[in-house]
Amino acid sequence: MTTFKAPLRDIDFVLNDVLDYQAHYKTIPCGEEATPDMVEAIISEAGKFAEEVLSPLNQVGDQQGCQWKDGEVTTPDGFKEAYQMWIEGGWQGLSHPAEYGGQGLPLSMGLIKSELVGTANWSWGMYPGLSLGAMNTLYVHGTEEQKQVYLSKLCEATWSGTMCLTEPHCGSDLGLMKTKAEPQQDGSYHITGTKIFISAGEHDMAENIVHIVLARTPGSPEGTKGISLFIVPKFLPNAEGGVGERNGVSCGSIEHKMGIHGNATCVMNFDNATGFMLGVENQGLEAMFTFMNTARVGTAIQGLAASELAYQNALPYAMERHSMRALSGKKNPEVAADAIIHHADVRRMLLTAKAFAEGGRLMIYDAAKYADRMMFAETEEERDEAENELGFLTPILKAFLTETGQESASLGMQVFGGHGYIAEHGMEQIYRDARISTMYEGTTGIQALDLIGRKVVLDGFKLYAAFSKKLYKFGFKTLFTGKQRGYGASIIGYTLCWNWKTVKMLARAARNRDAVGAASVDFLMYSGYLSMAYYMAMAAEAAHNKLNKGEGDTEFLKSKLETVEFYFKRLLPRAKAHAACMDSSTDSVMGMELGRFELR
Amino acid sequence: MTTFKAPLRDIDFVLNDVLDYQAHYKTIPCGEEATPDMVEAIISEAGKFAEEVLSPLNQVGDQQGCQWKDGEVTTPDGFKEAYQMWIEGGWQGLSHPAEYGGQGLPLSMGLIKSELVGTANWSWGMYPGLSLGAMNTLYVHGTEEQKQVYLSKLCEATWSGTMCLTEPHCGSDLGLMKTKAEPQQDGSYHITGTKIFISAGEHDMAENIVHIVLARTPGSPEGTKGISLFIVPKFLPNAEGGVGERNGVSCGSIEHKMGIHGNATCVMNFDNATGFMLGVENQGLEAMFTFMNTARVGTAIQGLAASELAYQNALPYAMERHSMRALSGKKNPEVAADAIIHHADVRRMLLTAKAFAEGGRLMIYDAAKYADRMMFAETEEERDEAENELGFLTPILKAFLTETGQESASLGMQVFGGHGYIAEHGMEQIYRDARISTMYEGTTGIQALDLIGRKVVLDGFKLYAAFSKKLYKFGFKTLFTGKQRGYGASIIGYTLCWNWKTVKMLARAARNRDAVGAASVDFLMYSGYLSMAYYMAMAAEAAHNKLNKGEGDTEFLKSKLETVEFYFKRLLPRAKAHAACMDSSTDSVMGMELGRFELR
Repeated sequence: MTTFKAPLRDIDFVLNDVLDYQAHYKTIPCGEEATPDMVEAIISEAGKFAEEVLSPLNQVGDQQGCQWKDGEVTTPDGFKEAYQMWIEGGWQGLSHPAEYGGQGLPLSMGLIKSELVGTANWSWGMYPGLSLGAMNTLYVHGTEEQKQVYLSKLCEATWSGTMCLTEPHCGSDLGLMKTKAEPQQDGSYHITGTKIFISAGEHDMAENIVHIVLARTPGSPEGTKGISLFIVPKFLPNAEGGVGERNGVSCGSIEHKMGIHGNATCVMNFDNATGFMLGVENQGLEAMFTFMNTARVGTAIQGLAASELAYQNALPYAMERHSMRALSGKKNPEVAADAIIHHADVRRMLLTAKAFAEGGRLMIYDAAKYADRMMFAETEEERDEAENELGFLTPILKAFLTETGQESASLGMQVFGGHGYIAEHGMEQIYRDARISTMYEGTTGIQALDLIGRKVVLDGFKLYAAFSKKLYKFGFKTLFTGKQRGYGASIIGYTLCWNWKTVKMLARAARNRDAVGAASVDFLMYSGYLSMAYYMAMAAEAAHNKLNKGEGDTEFLKSKLETVEFYFKRLLPRAKAHAACMDSSTDSVMGMELGRFELR
Repeated sequence: MTTFKAPLRDIDFVLNDVLDYQAHYKTIPCGEEATPDMVEAIISEAGKFAEEVLSPLNQVGDQQGCQWKDGEVTTPDGFKEAYQMWIEGGWQGLSHPAEYGGQGLPLSMGLIKSELVGTANWSWGMYPGLSLGAMNTLYVHGTEEQKQVYLSKLCEATWSGTMCLTEPHCGSDLGLMKTKAEPQQDGSYHITGTKIFISAGEHDMAENIVHIVLARTPGSPEGTKGISLFIVPKFLPNAEGGVGERNGVSCGSIEHKMGIHGNATCVMNFDNATGFMLGVENQGLEAMFTFMNTARVGTAIQGLAASELAYQNALPYAMERHSMRALSGKKNPEVAADAIIHHADVRRMLLTAKAFAEGGRLMIYDAAKYADRMMFAETEEERDEAENELGFLTPILKAFLTETGQESASLGMQVFGGHGYIAEHGMEQIYRDARISTMYEGTTGIQALDLIGRKVVLDGFKLYAAFSKKLYKFGFKTLFTGKQRGYGASIIGYTLCWNWKTVKMLARAARNRDAVGAASVDFLMYSGYLSMAYYMAMAAEAAHNKLNKGEGDTEFLKSKLETVEFYFKRLLPRAKAHAACMDSSTDSVMGMELGRFELR
């Protein structure tokens, strides 16, 4: 069984020493609430809740899973009780306005809370996580009445929420969607259709479930421009705002899946269910995507969570398990073999997970600052700028951190050898749970196309150029500052290569547009390794500064420097392979005629 | 649910066009039996058995798993019946001598049979696979009487076998083993101890189970030099050679594990069980390792199997699932979206699995030739040479092909998007089943140390130099032959880099032996990518030759050339990253003090 300890030391370092969150919070209105004491108190309380309440339920959730019977879903033992504590703690509305019962703190605080909750128990964390998606959509697109009725209940967490997008024949390509919305005399709609893969679609933890559903009104344009958004509650609200009549939406079945067993993945049948339009007709997809970046960063957290949890649980095993002598001589002469942490390859595996966790945390927490500014900056210009910058980073974070999270989870098992394959240790659960993260909320392939297609090419290279400039600037600055010099040179070199390969790829794409698709995932992974290098070098700089001043926890700061060094020497060079693959001919991927694939 | 089609076209191409197995079989005595007709008949029959009998049981095996009750293990529905057909088909003794009831065919035929069986249903295939390990050990180290009693029953498959090595506190480091063997008056031994992770340790498919057990006699030297080998049957043979009295060995429990649910992974308790010494006292470990290379190549097959099965099952989905338009323009204008195989990144994923499957098959089938020669070559010198060459390739095959097999399995799921995570499609089962392959039979880390420590350094670079020479020779020959020119240049370049990085690494190791461990897995993976390139280029040469002569299936040969091109352009470049990591300072891995790892 896995255990979890909130990485408070690292979170504090990232927030205060690297990213200067205190200065950041002074630039946004709701940042006033987020005083250093408040931030510390919330993180430490959320950490305690994650460690003491959620972590012990992680294996139970996996082993019992959710049970479906006659349309009702029973969650694993303890999930309901934990959710009750969540309601009582007032956690759900942390980053939502006080007028709807929230605490009015910055969005970034919510993301940090999600990390702690999700690392301890991803399956459980998805219930409040999906509610958050519904809350955000309602907050921006709902009428005042809709907000009073639904958002306030969601903020309390007595009601939970979902996002109903996918249908059996369409996931990534929502333009193919078929669910229908027939307008009624009273201004409501009758929703009919089937949605699949609806996380938290049905469960026994909340009084009511508010589905945010994509559907088509009669005569709406084909494709993505004819989709509207609807609120479809499981129980219609009564006159007092409480739970009223049962609506025509039901859970047809739940999926049997590889992992995240504690979360119900539902087939939802809408049969003339009463729905209320949310936002403007035919602009539903756009509205749904308002918080797409935030949701995707939320999924990137699953990658960070997998790296952190795999590291935390592989480490004690590597310390305690003895096998063979270290190559450089006996380390535990009192016993017949050395602890396996003395073997270099075991260290390589541990440090890989450690570096991906710490690098991922840096990337996500910096993105969270953009998310705050996107919501709360003073001027529209600043808000747009922040949204764009977040938009550029999002596909990188989502795809790169979930891919590396899966690698960490795999290495965590590998440290255990054959024991990693056995259920009781929990390592294989981390691996199974993490595996969905590169597939839902847009696959790695979709993220890669979003990055290169929309965020680089369609944007006219503005964001790409700005990010490159930031890297060069940091690289050159660092090139002249003592111990970080090498990192500066690396960042400059890898950025030059990034730029040059991008130009070459786009030159190929001028002749054959498939050149973009063929290179896209390699381009994304290169971008990921390079961005993480930038953040890691910033962390090293911050650690050096503190060490020079004689401040902070010396041992922790040294471990940080060593982790960054490992990253630059043993992980960043992988970008070279992605560069080489990205550079190869499009024909090497697209040349084969269809009929030849099946010749075995 | 997955389906399986025996890749007969590719097997035929590898055997006859690339590796010239007909010439090979003329050089070994038992090769006479392996006429082209015989080989074809056996492969086609084994393929049919795998497709029709074993493949349909693959998902059943996963979902039902094995059930333990009071020491008895029940295998999933249909496993027993399939095993009965296996007995009737005389498959078990395919490569064992006729005097013990076998068919006397070369060892290589057995490995090809294992590929077909294992791709269709790895869990089921492990039962006869473990028997094979016991059979091989008995064949080389058993007395004539032991062979008559046990080997003949194992060849029939009416009895099955296991290999009992691991104990709770030791897996890789068998020197720490504790199981005891007390000599008795009648020359037998009483075996007492606990063995874990015993695949096929208990089940309901055979009349008797013959355990080959490592244990220590009283007063034996400590460590690996004090281990002896024992035959411990579940039922002692009676005077007629049939099943007699129950022996003191029992299955205490079975493991709950991530995958291969259809195979029972047993805790075996030996409680004064009667055992018979096999081979020479205190030379048990050596004896057990006689067939270590063959067993490890057998596990490498699991990697090939995962790549093949993932490819075969992802392909039809990619052909049938429609989502979004291809970047280069509509491909299926009659419907609203194109089949996803038209998206370059989906092709990249499919071709990765295809290339790893086909490259893996080439590598394993070539290794199988060495295995044949190791057993059957005329002179001891030739046999030793073959054993050494096989020994050099084994860790590369075992680790590289299982690592790449896991990648293929993961990409196979990824092609399905969210649907890949759902049990019914079977893609997630491939992934879970494959995950054990880098951990058992020596982890990737152990293989890497075996390669660089024993097969390169301790061998005095002889095998390494010979393999390098083979690569250069092929590279230079190919450098002047038309279309293969580029591949020749690549192989020369990558071999030069391999040699240079090896020298540098060993120079570092002269100062700090941990340099070897820190670089070992990168060294192994580089060696894997390079070896596969060599075999792939050979395949391209063979395909070109046939096309030039107007022979063979043109479309198949073209698909082969395209797959090789993909490999050189999109997979081989990854070796560059391994080279760069391998070249980094040892301190980047070993520098962190122990206490700093846990500072979160």
